[in-house]
Amino acid sequence: MNVGPIGSTANMESCMRAVVFDGNLRFVRGTPRPVPRKGESLIRVRLAGICNTDIQIMRGYMGFRGVLGHEFVGTVAKGAFEGSRVVGEINCGCGICDYCRRGLSNHCPTRTTLGIGGRDGSMADYLVLPAENLHKVPQGLPDEEAVFVEPLGAAMQVLDCVAIGPSKRILVMGDGTLGLLISLLIGRTSAQVTLVGKHRDKLNVASDQGVDTVLLPDLEIEKAYDLVIEATGSPDGLSLALQLVRPRGTIVLKTTAAASSEMNLAPIVVDEVHVIGSRCGPFKPAVKALLNRYIDVRPLISGIYEFDRANEAFAAAPGALKVLIDFR
Amino acid sequence: MNVGPIGSTANMESCMRAVVFDGNLRFVRGTPRPVPRKGESLIRVRLAGICNTDIQIMRGYMGFRGVLGHEFVGTVAKGAFEGSRVVGEINCGCGICDYCRRGLSNHCPTRTTLGIGGRDGSMADYLVLPAENLHKVPQGLPDEEAVFVEPLGAAMQVLDCVAIGPSKRILVMGDGTLGLLISLLIGRTSAQVTLVGKHRDKLNVASDQGVDTVLLPDLEIEKAYDLVIEATGSPDGLSLALQLVRPRGTIVLKTTAAASSEMNLAPIVVDEVHVIGSRCGPFKPAVKALLNRYIDVRPLISGIYEFDRANEAFAAAPGALKVLIDFR
Repeated sequence: MNVGPIGSTANMESCMRAVVFDGNLRFVRGTPRPVPRKGESLIRVRLAGICNTDIQIMRGYMGFRGVLGHEFVGTVAKGAFEGSRVVGEINCGCGICDYCRRGLSNHCPTRTTLGIGGRDGSMADYLVLPAENLHKVPQGLPDEEAVFVEPLGAAMQVLDCVAIGPSKRILVMGDGTLGLLISLLIGRTSAQVTLVGKHRDKLNVASDQGVDTVLLPDLEIEKAYDLVIEATGSPDGLSLALQLVRPRGTIVLKTTAAASSEMNLAPIVVDEVHVIGSRCGPFKPAVKALLNRYIDVRPLISGIYEFDRANEAFAAAPGALKVLIDFR
Repeated sequence: MNVGPIGSTANMESCMRAVVFDGNLRFVRGTPRPVPRKGESLIRVRLAGICNTDIQIMRGYMGFRGVLGHEFVGTVAKGAFEGSRVVGEINCGCGICDYCRRGLSNHCPTRTTLGIGGRDGSMADYLVLPAENLHKVPQGLPDEEAVFVEPLGAAMQVLDCVAIGPSKRILVMGDGTLGLLISLLIGRTSAQVTLVGKHRDKLNVASDQGVDTVLLPDLEIEKAYDLVIEATGSPDGLSLALQLVRPRGTIVLKTTAAASSEMNLAPIVVDEVHVIGSRCGPFKPAVKALLNRYIDVRPLISGIYEFDRANEAFAAAPGALKVLIDFR
């Protein structure tokens, strides 16, 4: 498929396929292609990943309406990096506020976020992003692994929040994609890390790469861990984490869910726990880690679906690891 | 009142007055005096303070049953420091676990806590505490101020968790005793601190000592503060704090409440906020600060009630600042 004329009147050449959430999930074929603004590149999407955040958006998280998706690998069709295969950071800052000037554009108060806030996402034939958000994908890194750059960056962000030295007992909660990536990443340092989850088959993806794993019913519930990384995707994850972290220990919170949770916060105070929220992370080291296969993400792919079967992809995603939609 | 024989058969000499919570609040006159064990001192209580934690215990917090109260000043009747006026740290550790050996007996897993967990409290003629928990009260420090050592120590503990340098915009939430003490303490460093509360008369106690104050309805709700110290005593305090802290800012959580709260934790993650629980603090610097009147706590005393009127004290406490019960 070639790039049609940008900004032309709507016709088949300027239309595209897309997964749209407008209160309902729709798989549309005739939605207009996005038009890049100054400084933005138009990207022909190759693969897009379904993230738990997408599932949460469908439950009301962020109140987002538009093309879903923030994980992708694609080829620049127009603009900077034209012709290159790229991945793209998802937060688009104003460029001039204090946060943007300090390199924290992901906290810009007027930012848009690909497929999450104020900007159409990656589950479509085309998307647009500012050129400064793009990172070239090295030739040796296949699409199916490059699409993990965004979640692996989010996993790496944990290491910006806390030290993971060998004296620490570390527990990663959640055997979804993010929990697996975090445990694999930390496991590479030979830290004392255990991954706890509810699914033996998912845990095996981590144990196959050397991480200690345990099924939740077999986990001793005691305040024994110096560091608990909560990546369950469940609003109740923090309450359980507070039963597992030692006094004065640290919990890194990764879950963003649409639902609220009824919880008592007193254990945070009584045990003087540090709770650190952590969101998006750096792309460049994630590209390097994947290229060098420090982490092998291929076992995390549960399925790759053509757009025609995107409905099946969304049906499979909640219980699966990484589900990809193929726009190639 | 003199000390009766310890461990004798029950008679009027070995009985005492006490405020007891056994599911209902009771003001009893004939409860047995506590008997000090090895290493403990018997203390004749002079003044005891009512804390919001006591109110929360009456609502079910910690499931505590027994003599209420953990704030006091008294005179040692028997044991180490006999004859001296003392205040006492409230956590009693085992002395041999890893926490106790590291000086963190307030996190000992088998600790008892005066009037909060496993140990009768201070709202009685007598209490017992390990001698190592006691601090002599200097002659120049009146009972009415010495009784603030425990809450002032808890306020000081905030400074062990976070830096409060002049570049930071700091908000203290809550115009109860703890919020006032924290704002007065931080205000002494000329930090950019604002105290927000719901009661003009209480806020005035802080503004009279130089702290900027604002009524909650007049506070602009924006993510503007580098550091928010949540001392509202309300389970909903954290949700409001998350609307006021800037991205990557810090919230120090001081509230322990019996009630749970329905809240969405996503803002912690999205804004990558640090939430730090903080509980008890050091007594020695609190004694010094009070002795030197770095902070004048006298305006925080809402009322001093004889035991005969302790029911009135408890009726007044929830809406007041510090209410004291006089056992002298």
